[in-house]
Parts: sequence; structure tokens; C-alpha cells
Amino acid sequence: MVAERFHFPEKMVTRIVDLRSDTVTKPTEAMRAAMASAEVDDDVLGNDPMAFRLEEEMAKITGKEAALFVPSGTMGNLISVLVHCEIRGSEVILGSNCHIHIYENGGIATIGGVHPRPVKNNDDGTMDIDSIEAAIRDPRGEIVYPTTRLICLENSHANSGGRCLSAEYTDRVGEVAKKHGLKLHIDGARIFNASVALGVPVDRLVRAADSVSVCLSKGLGAPVGSVVVGSKSFIAKARRLRKTLGGGMRQIGILCAAALVALRDNVGNLATDHKNAKLFADGLNQIKGLRVDGPVETNIIFIEIEEGSGTNVGKICKSLEDRGILLMSESISRLRVVLHHQISASDVQYALSCFQHAVKKVQTENGN
Amino acid sequence: MVAERFHFPEKMVTRIVDLRSDTVTKPTEAMRAAMASAEVDDDVLGNDPMAFRLEEEMAKITGKEAALFVPSGTMGNLISVLVHCEIRGSEVILGSNCHIHIYENGGIATIGGVHPRPVKNNDDGTMDIDSIEAAIRDPRGEIVYPTTRLICLENSHANSGGRCLSAEYTDRVGEVAKKHGLKLHIDGARIFNASVALGVPVDRLVRAADSVSVCLSKGLGAPVGSVVVGSKSFIAKARRLRKTLGGGMRQIGILCAAALVALRDNVGNLATDHKNAKLFADGLNQIKGLRVDGPVETNIIFIEIEEGSGTNVGKICKSLEDRGILLMSESISRLRVVLHHQISASDVQYALSCFQHAVKKVQTENGN
Amino acid sequence: MVAERFHFPEKMVTRIVDLRSDTVTKPTEAMRAAMASAEVDDDVLGNDPMAFRLEEEMAKITGKEAALFVPSGTMGNLISVLVHCEIRGSEVILGSNCHIHIYENGGIATIGGVHPRPVKNNDDGTMDIDSIEAAIRDPRGEIVYPTTRLICLENSHANSGGRCLSAEYTDRVGEVAKKHGLKLHIDGARIFNASVALGVPVDRLVRAADSVSVCLSKGLGAPVGSVVVGSKSFIAKARRLRKTLGGGMRQIGILCAAALVALRDNVGNLATDHKNAKLFADGLNQIKGLRVDGPVETNIIFIEIEEGSGTNVGKICKSLEDRGILLMSESISRLRVVLHHQISASDVQYALSCFQHAVKKVQTENGN
Amino acid sequence: MVAERFHFPEKMVTRIVDLRSDTVTKPTEAMRAAMASAEVDDDVLGNDPMAFRLEEEMAKITGKEAALFVPSGTMGNLISVLVHCEIRGSEVILGSNCHIHIYENGGIATIGGVHPRPVKNNDDGTMDIDSIEAAIRDPRGEIVYPTTRLICLENSHANSGGRCLSAEYTDRVGEVAKKHGLKLHIDGARIFNASVALGVPVDRLVRAADSVSVCLSKGLGAPVGSVVVGSKSFIAKARRLRKTLGGGMRQIGILCAAALVALRDNVGNLATDHKNAKLFADGLNQIKGLRVDGPVETNIIFIEIEEGSGTNVGKICKSLEDRGILLMSESISRLRVVLHHQISASDVQYALSCFQHAVKKVQTENGN
Repeated sequence: MVAERFHFPEKMVTRIVDLRSDTVTKPTEAMRAAMASAEVDDDVLGNDPMAFRLEEEMAKITGKEAALFVPSGTMGNLISVLVHCEIRGSEVILGSNCHIHIYENGGIATIGGVHPRPVKNNDDGTMDIDSIEAAIRDPRGEIVYPTTRLICLENSHANSGGRCLSAEYTDRVGEVAKKHGLKLHIDGARIFNASVALGVPVDRLVRAADSVSVCLSKGLGAPVGSVVVGSKSFIAKARRLRKTLGGGMRQIGILCAAALVALRDNVGNLATDHKNAKLFADGLNQIKGLRVDGPVETNIIFIEIEEGSGTNVGKICKSLEDRGILLMSESISRLRVVLHHQISASDVQYALSCFQHAVKKVQTENGN
Repeated sequence: MVAERFHFPEKMVTRIVDLRSDTVTKPTEAMRAAMASAEVDDDVLGNDPMAFRLEEEMAKITGKEAALFVPSGTMGNLISVLVHCEIRGSEVILGSNCHIHIYENGGIATIGGVHPRPVKNNDDGTMDIDSIEAAIRDPRGEIVYPTTRLICLENSHANSGGRCLSAEYTDRVGEVAKKHGLKLHIDGARIFNASVALGVPVDRLVRAADSVSVCLSKGLGAPVGSVVVGSKSFIAKARRLRKTLGGGMRQIGILCAAALVALRDNVGNLATDHKNAKLFADGLNQIKGLRVDGPVETNIIFIEIEEGSGTNVGKICKSLEDRGILLMSESISRLRVVLHHQISASDVQYALSCFQHAVKKVQTENGN
Repeated sequence: MVAERFHFPEKMVTRIVDLRSDTVTKPTEAMRAAMASAEVDDDVLGNDPMAFRLEEEMAKITGKEAALFVPSGTMGNLISVLVHCEIRGSEVILGSNCHIHIYENGGIATIGGVHPRPVKNNDDGTMDIDSIEAAIRDPRGEIVYPTTRLICLENSHANSGGRCLSAEYTDRVGEVAKKHGLKLHIDGARIFNASVALGVPVDRLVRAADSVSVCLSKGLGAPVGSVVVGSKSFIAKARRLRKTLGGGMRQIGILCAAALVALRDNVGNLATDHKNAKLFADGLNQIKGLRVDGPVETNIIFIEIEEGSGTNVGKICKSLEDRGILLMSESISRLRVVLHHQISASDVQYALSCFQHAVKKVQTENGN
Repeated sequence: MVAERFHFPEKMVTRIVDLRSDTVTKPTEAMRAAMASAEVDDDVLGNDPMAFRLEEEMAKITGKEAALFVPSGTMGNLISVLVHCEIRGSEVILGSNCHIHIYENGGIATIGGVHPRPVKNNDDGTMDIDSIEAAIRDPRGEIVYPTTRLICLENSHANSGGRCLSAEYTDRVGEVAKKHGLKLHIDGARIFNASVALGVPVDRLVRAADSVSVCLSKGLGAPVGSVVVGSKSFIAKARRLRKTLGGGMRQIGILCAAALVALRDNVGNLATDHKNAKLFADGLNQIKGLRVDGPVETNIIFIEIEEGSGTNVGKICKSLEDRGILLMSESISRLRVVLHHQISASDVQYALSCFQHAVKKVQTENGN
């Protein structure tokens, strides 16, 4: 996930298959046309018509009262946590492995002074309901405790390999939240992936949530932005906080127009992405020395490089990059691959052949 | 400056002259074309070519090592202050009337825990050099003092009616900063206006500054964004902080392409904006009951409604809005008008005639 | 106000007159006896009987519902501001020259993220009522504004030379606060001095306030501590925040016992301190080259070293220290002297003679 | 740990055995005498001689350059973490069950904006070295990561039943810290207990640490305070931060004098406390329905009420309180008992008999 680490192959390659993330997609022709002709106005002054339309559309899809366009998923989550935890001394319960805790610079503490209380993420991205409940701290309780005000879930759960939380699980967490007077936020950066994979509408999946952050520039393929949804009063506070953080932008109708095309055109592609991901995972599992971690439910694959197989991540990545296959190394034994609408089944086959080649090459070099 | 306050005229008006801000401009055809064809990539991963080009261009114009695209001027200032004041217990000296202190939600304190130490702004947007120096607090000094780490200037200075700080004044503040080991940041949201008005290149105006925030979506007319400039190490920290705040965006080449067009096409228009502003101010001063506050040096005009003139702001605004003239009321006796490249000399004449009509109408109603 | 700056005279002096602050008093025999025999318990667990008694007494004196012992006046103010501004994005209106803004490390911003909005302090420690009202920013207002939630006064006002705010002035500020839904906090570090000087009971002086911080270790002469007072719900929040800041202490009955003696024995001494201060000021004004700044209403004197008099602060201080007179230099032309119950009229006469000697000596050295 | 929850027995009891914490001790006669005669001065101005003496003594005991008296262990930890993490965007690695993470109001995030990264605490209070190292995040690394700057240990580890970290374990963590350029802080609230239990001098136990917070008012029995120790530059920053937080106090020689007596008289008692704790634990384990959790190494005992034994915490506590036995309930099945120098072997026997009575009574009531 670091700019500095990734360089495009130096020698010319005939084919690039960019599997680093589903954020790398380029805007489609339809999006470009929409941006070129978008009716716009100053959204900070509250007048941009395309922002209105996108926010209305996203509120409807998620079944919430109101919505707000924000520059990124990180800002969507940051704003959501900070609005729910607007009182100093708040604590949030979240997964030990979730995006907010691991990949957002600790912003909720650094920027918002919110105390994170991580609860262990299971392999499927859930936290045990009992563990959640045990971690809750009552405002009327111990004078040495911060006050729990929020629970965060992530659906699909990226660091668990894109696995999906069921509506029933989310409902149960929602009940715990309600019982204790807490709010529930869902980091739904890839909630459309979860919806498609589970065959459950988005609004049903997030019914128990007080707020959801939905990313437009991941699987949906829009160039920029996320949307947060919630009650009208939540969104009014979110709008003010977006300005504080510097996320208020002017003629965002340009970006919202592209996002509306993404919503219209690309949700349907997610099923294909998931199919391609399964195809990819099956292929990887057949390469000796590689092992896909866990079932692949959506568009994310974590690949473990088996110990003692005589291979290593750096060499494999190098070999793949030489052939135009770009991906992320997560650790010294772990790679991440993400599918998206600009990766075809043919790209998957090509990438698999490159993987086979790379592993074999490294094994040969190592004398195995 | 509030969305809620401004509604477009309900009855059809034949002509809209939007003087609320220079942020309200619509992208030109050239910008739209550039956005439609922009080569893009994922800027969070560090690969967007148009972002590179824009940042390089802005670094060159301002004479600084490096640059970073950010979603807004507010984020540009917030990031700059927070990078210079990265150590807890920092204090920043800034104008009592400057944008950062008045119009940015107190973000440097709210979000960054930086203590603002306002020094009185003179009518021309300067602070007295002696007052700046007297306000500096030494890290080796009193145990009860925060440590001054930064001085902020604003050029042109919006709340002082868009007046310009000379290169010499800025240099002198820079010397004070240097002498005391402080950094100097310039909120250069409208630094191009100052440059054009003073006939001094931007890089000369900001030579003494360690960082500058330059707005693309004000007078320059780009749809979205600002750029911060500074040393390489400053920009490296700024990039990380931008991510923390949620200002890291993906295919921003779209926006950067429009900004490059703005830089190419619109800097030349600023002189016309200033000429129109002077024209407007002269006309306003001839209307009995109105008085333009201070000399008009760039594109901003503050209009005082004279006491006892039998008029009032609310009625005048209403009458103006009915004729399509949109502007901001700053207080119960003060209006703000901002010129930009989508306001012509003819628009100014039309707006002046509406002002005349509005003042007369209100005076008549009041029996004067 | 800095430890590093003050060293006790190296050569033996027969007499020390410590005028650095009213914080330097040593506990009296009665206080020492009270501490030695104080019944104590663990105050963090809520059981210390002397803390109960002191808090009850202070609540009664100030006419508030409840009270809380805190380690210092700085913590008393910090807690008060942070409790009233518990919601992120709060702004506090306070005097440009007040203790909270100048001498408390910017803690409300640094630690609490509260945005200070200083309003000019007049020479008598007041802020103009109109200026206060003009600075208030409405939560329903501009999306770019923080929300004003608190006004702070300081009585007596240290940096204005210990001048007192009248009950009527405070009431008027209280009305402004009420009208706009704001809270009013009084930094009453020296509220007993103000009460004695004005001949108005403390509870009357702070009637309009939602909270007051009262110092025990200044004029009252207790070794350690302050008390904050307010409503029961304010104090409940203050208690929790005191724990967060690390101000929860165990057997504080020791300190509270001394403070109860201070309240019983030392309030009566304040009139004498004020009389001695006036005596001192009169004497100083008769020394050519010195000028007392403003009327002396309580126990604080600021001395201006007149320009061109051939003297300077450093040399005068050195000469005074050599004779056992300890005081604070505020700037290159300004000294501060504070009276307290361990400075007698005779000490004042001695100090005056040392001042005369010092000024004459320096003038002679300078060839005047 | 909550004030509100504990009330002294309403009916007169002939004997109180206060096992709630080792913070409940009353000052001894020797301490009271020392306080009554302590030579004092204003410690904020840097002149208190007893503070100097205590700080010098503690620096010597811990083998560090310098020391600072603070009002509480919470402030000692808060200051230490914030000084090491003075740069915005810092992350601290700490035990999932440690005092800083669980019992200090989340202050490091709430007050300091430091992001906590908890690593699982083993039953013995350690964290796996590998897990620590895996959690470290490099400042040059991912743009989405906060920067790890500190590791915190706690010795003895309260929530693990007062178990001790060996010098070797601490050294190994210190090596990891050093290797990655991190600092190591030890919450040594009960480091003297660990030292006595392990038979290893304090300075050896904390050799690898950059800072240690040592509590005076726990096992040592002083009425108030903790001391933080570290390098001179660390302590200079700590002193400033103590002032910011409101922990700067005036004539603290009173408290420091008592603490010096505590250091002289009470360290020798800790072995007896530990012996009494083992005695107590052995006795408790013989009561059917109770089970002491883990080995008792120092002065803390966690008691599990066995499920299905027909007893419950509330009833047992009530019965114990009726007989003057005060303790803490940690959860619905868990009690905590802490020994200290004002609990004798005879008190332990009495408390055990009350436990037997209480459990039996509850079992009888429940029909077992």
C-alpha cells in the first residue's frame, strides 16, 4: 500500500495486469463523458446538483436518511467515528485487524482523540459477540474508564481476505449496541461486494447501522471518493466536520457524475470479479509452494508463500513485475491480489501462468 | 459563507451574476476537455502522472522543492500548520482576522492541538513586526509557555478586502522567523492575485516562506483543489498527513488536468478581475448609503451599509437576489463581493444598476 | 515564572523578602499541625473525609452545588474549560492577556483541542461586552466556524496588575452567555483578593458563573491545590477528567486539612496584603526611574523601568537579589512584585530601601 | 475501583480489613512527623528542597539520570508516553490487559492523541517478543501507518495478578526497542514489589528502560504521588508537560518528605506483604467454591468464584463488608484482594474466616 514501493516495470512489458488494489481502475469512457458534461456548482456553498443526486441515490441504496460525498474512505470512516464520538473521552470497539485500526494512520486517536479498544477479529472478519459485549464500558461506571460510544464493523472485511458479514451477524451486533446505548458504524468500503456475494441488498446488510462509509473508487471503479450515510443530524455534523478536515471541495459534480455512472454500470460487474477471484485462487492453490489463505468470498486473495518451499516473496514479486503483474506484498510470506472490473478472466489466466513461472524460477535458482 | 443561507432566486431571473466568491466558477470547456482525456493512475499509490505534472509546475512557480495536491485550501493550511507544529505544545502566531483563525473551524486546535496566538491584523492585512516578535515564546523559556514554532501570513488577505503583502514585508517577517528558529507559512489561497496586483512573481513573494498553500479553485477557476509547496521533507510529511486526514484520493489526474489548464489559461484573467473590482468599487462608492471599505487592490470588495441611511442589509440582499445578483452578507452592516473570470465588465454594470435600484427601493420603503 | 531563572543569593543574606509570587508562602504552624493529625482516606476511591469537608466548605463559600480539589489552578482551569467544551469543535472566548491564554502552556488547545478566541483585555482586566458578543459563533451558523461554548473571565486579573471585576460586570457577561446558550467560567485563582478588595462576598462575585476555579496556594497560603466549583453534574464530569489528567490523588486529606486552616486563618490577612501593596506602590512611585503600572487594587504590582533613566532590569534585579529581595522580571522593562501574608509592612520598607539603593547604584554605574 | 461503589459498613464493625488496594494505606506516625517538619519551597519555581531530595533518591534507586515527582501514577504514565510520543502520529505498543490501556481513561489517546496498539498479554504479564516485533511500524514505511515510537511494559503486572517480569525478559524487549529505534517505558507502579519478589535490584530490572513511573502511594504507603525517571532531557520535557497537565504543585516538600520516609521504612515490608498474600491465597484455595487465579508472586490476588458453586459475587461481598472486609469486585465472577503494610498476618486469618463464613452463608441461602 505504499507509493514508494511500487515502480512500474522498467523494461517495456506488453501487458500490465494491475492487481495491487481495486482502487487502481481507470475511469471508463462513460465516466469520462459524464465528467465532461456534468452540471456543477459550489458544493461547499451547498449547491452542487450532481452531489445532491449522488447523495440521494446512495441514501436510497443504503436505506438511510441522508448522505455526504467525501474525498476518501479514510475520511468517511474518520468523520463517522468522530461524529459518533464527538464527546471527549470516547472509546470505540473495533476489530483488531480492521482497516480503521491498521491502515488509517491511527487517525481516530491522532486526529480525534478517540480511544480504540480492539477486539480480536476471527478469520471470517467477525468479532465474537460476547467479546464485544465484555469490552463495553459504561459511562456511569468506573471513573478510570473511557466511555464506549461506538462499535465498528467492516463488510466485506479486507484483512480477512474480503470475507462477508451476514445480515444476521450485523443485526446481532446492532442489538448489543442498542442495548448499551452505543452507535454502530460499518466500514462498507466494499459493501457492494458483500451484497453481491451474499445475494442480500445493501440496505438489508446495513439495516442495524447508524452510519456506513461506502467507497466509490474501489470495486465500483469511480475515480475518486466515498459516501457516508446516516441520519439527517449525523450528516449535518459530518458536513461540518468534513469542512474542518479540509474535505469540503467546490465543483465536485465532476466526480459525482462519474460516481453515478459507476453505480449504474459497475455493480453488475462485481459478480464477475468474484468469479475471477475464485478462478485465480483455485489456480494459485495448484501451484506448489503457494497457498490461498481461507475461502475467497469476494475479490480479495491473500497468498501464503509456504515455508521451506525454497521460494521467497521478494524474488517472486520481482519476477512477476518483470512480466507486468503488479501486486502487494503484505509481509515476508504473504501477498495480496485484488480483482476488479478491469481484470478479465484472460488476465487471470495470464497472471497464473506468470505465477507458475515465477515460483518455478525461484525454486530452480534456490536449487530445489 | 453558508450553504443554508443562499438560495437561488425562486422566480426565473434572466441573468445571474454570482459574486458570492471566486470559488463559484464553472470549469471552462478547455478544462472539461482536459478532464475527459486526462491520463490517470492511483495517486495514493503514488503513480498519477497528471498529479506529478501539476505538483512539479506549482513547485516551479513558487520556487520550492516539492508540492502536493490537496482537496482544499483548508486542508492545505491545516496540513502545513500541523507539519510545522508536529511536536505537541506548539503555538502559531497568526493574524487576528486571518482565514485560518476565523474561517477554518479552529481546525488547527480542534484537530491538531496547536495553540493559536493571534496578533492584531492591521487594515492592510499585515501584523506589526514588533507585535509578532513580542508574541514569540522561546522553547527554553518559561515552563508555562507553549513553544512558538510557526508564523502564518495570508497574501492576499481576504478579510482585509483582498489587500496584498509586499515581498519586502514578507521578507522582514521571514527574518524574524529565521532569527527565532521559527517556520513561516503563507496562506496563498489568492497568491496569484497578489502577484498580479503587485507585479511581482509568485516565487519572489513567497521566497521567505517555508510553505505556501495555493488555491486552484478560487481566482484560477479550477473545479477542485489546492497545492501546498515546501521542501522535500516537508512534502513527505504532508503526504502522510494528507492520508491521515482522508485527503488521499485515487485518480486525481482528472482534477489535476483541469488545474493545469487553469494555470495556463486563467492567471492572465486576474488583472481583468482586479480592474472590474475597481470599476465596481467606484460605482458602489457613488451610491449614497454605501461605502467600500478600504482600497480595492485585487478582486474582493467589502461594502459597508452606512448607518442612518435608512437601508439595511437584509432588504438590499433580497432585492439583489430577486434580480439574480448573489453575494455574501458578512454582518448586519457589511456585504462582500468577489470578482472572478466569469464576471464581465458588463456584469459589473448590471450589478451596479441592481445595487442602485435596491438601495433606492429600500430608502423609499423606509420613507427616506 | 521560571524555575531556572531564580537562584537564591549565593552569599549569605540576613533577610529574604520573597516577592516572586503569592505562591511561595510556607505552611503556618497551624497548617502543619492540621496536616500531622488529619484524618485521611483514599480520595480516588472517594472516601477522604477532609477532602469532603474542604469541598463542602468551598461550595458553600462560592454558592455552588459541588466542589472538587485539584492539584493546581492550571488543572482547575483546564478541567473547567474541557468539561464545558466536551464536544469536539468548541471555541472559548477569553481575554487576550488572561492567565489561561498566556501562562497555561496553551493546554486547552494542546491537551483539549479547544480553540481559543481571544478578545482584547482592557487595562482593568475586562473585555468589552460588545466585543465578547461580536466574537460569539453560533452552532447553527457558518459551516466554517467552531462553536462558541464558553466565556472565561479572570478575577482578580493577574496580568492587569491584580485588578478586580465587579459583580455587575460579571453579571452582564453572564447575561450575554445565557442569551447565547454559553457557559461562563471564572478563573478565580485570586477571587478572595477580589472579594476583600471590593467588599463583596465571593458567592456574589461568581453568581453568574457556571464554574469557578479557586486557588488555595496563592494568597490563602495553603501549600498545595485549588478547588473547582459548579453544579453536581459539572463536578461529576470534572472528577472523571481529573482522573484522566492524572490529578486523582490518594490521601489528600493531608493537603485539604492545611487548606481548611488557610480558609479559616488567612482570608482576613488579604486586606493587609492589599494595604502593604499600596504602601509599596506609593514608595516605588517616589523612586525616580520607576513607575507603577496602573492603580493597585489588590496584592500585585507591575513596575515599569522608565526608558532613558539609565537603569535596566537585569542590574536592578541583581542588586535586589544580593540583598535578599526576590521578584520576577516580566520583560526587559517590567518587574512584578506580589504581596502575601508572609510579607510584613516592615519587609515592604526594607524592600523599598533596597529598590532605592539598586536604582541609585545602577544610575551611578551608568554615569547618570 | 469506583468511589461510588464502595461504602463503609453502615453498622459499626469492630475491625476493618481494607483489601481494596494498596493505595488505601494511611500515613505512618513517622511520615506525619516528617510532613509536619518538612522544609519546603515553591516547586513550580523549582526550589523545593525535599522534592530535590526525593527525586535524587529515586533517580539513584532506578539508575537513571533524573526524576520528577508527579501527583499520580496515571500522570506518571501519561507524561512518559506523551514525552516519548511528542510527535503527532505516534503509536505505542502495550499489553492488551495493562493498566495504561484499561484503567487510565484512554488518556494517551484522549489527551495525547497517541494511538495504542495493544498486543496480547500472556497470563504472566508478558507479551510475546515476536508479537511485539510484528506490531512495530516503521516511519519510513507504509503511508497509511502511524509510527511506532514506544513500547510499554508493566512490572509487576497488576491485571495478571501482580506477576513479575524478569530482568532478562525486559532486556529482550529493550533490545527489540533499540533495534527499531523505539523507546521503552515501564509502568513500575509496583516495581518495588517486583524487585523484592525477584530478589533483583530495581535499577537492574529497569536497566533497559528509557523511563519508569514508580508509585509512592501503593505498596510504599506514602500518602500521595509517583515519580517518573529517565534521562535529563526526558525529565526536562516531563516537567513542562506536568505543568501543562496541571500537575505542577507548590510546597510539595510536604508530600515528598512523607515519600522519603516511605522509601526508608516500607520497602522492607513488601516481603511480608507477599508472604501474607501467599498465606491468603493458600487459605482461599481451600475454600470450596473459590479459586485463586494463577500463582501469587507479589501482593495481588484475583479470586474466581467458581461457576455452579451456588455462590455469587454480590452476596459474598455484602457478607464480607458486613464484617469489615473491603475488597473490589472485578466482574460477576471475580474478586480482587491487595495486601499492604497495614494488613497483618492476623488480619489475613480474620479475612479468611470471614470468607469461609460468607461462602458458606451464601451456599446455605442458595440451598446447597
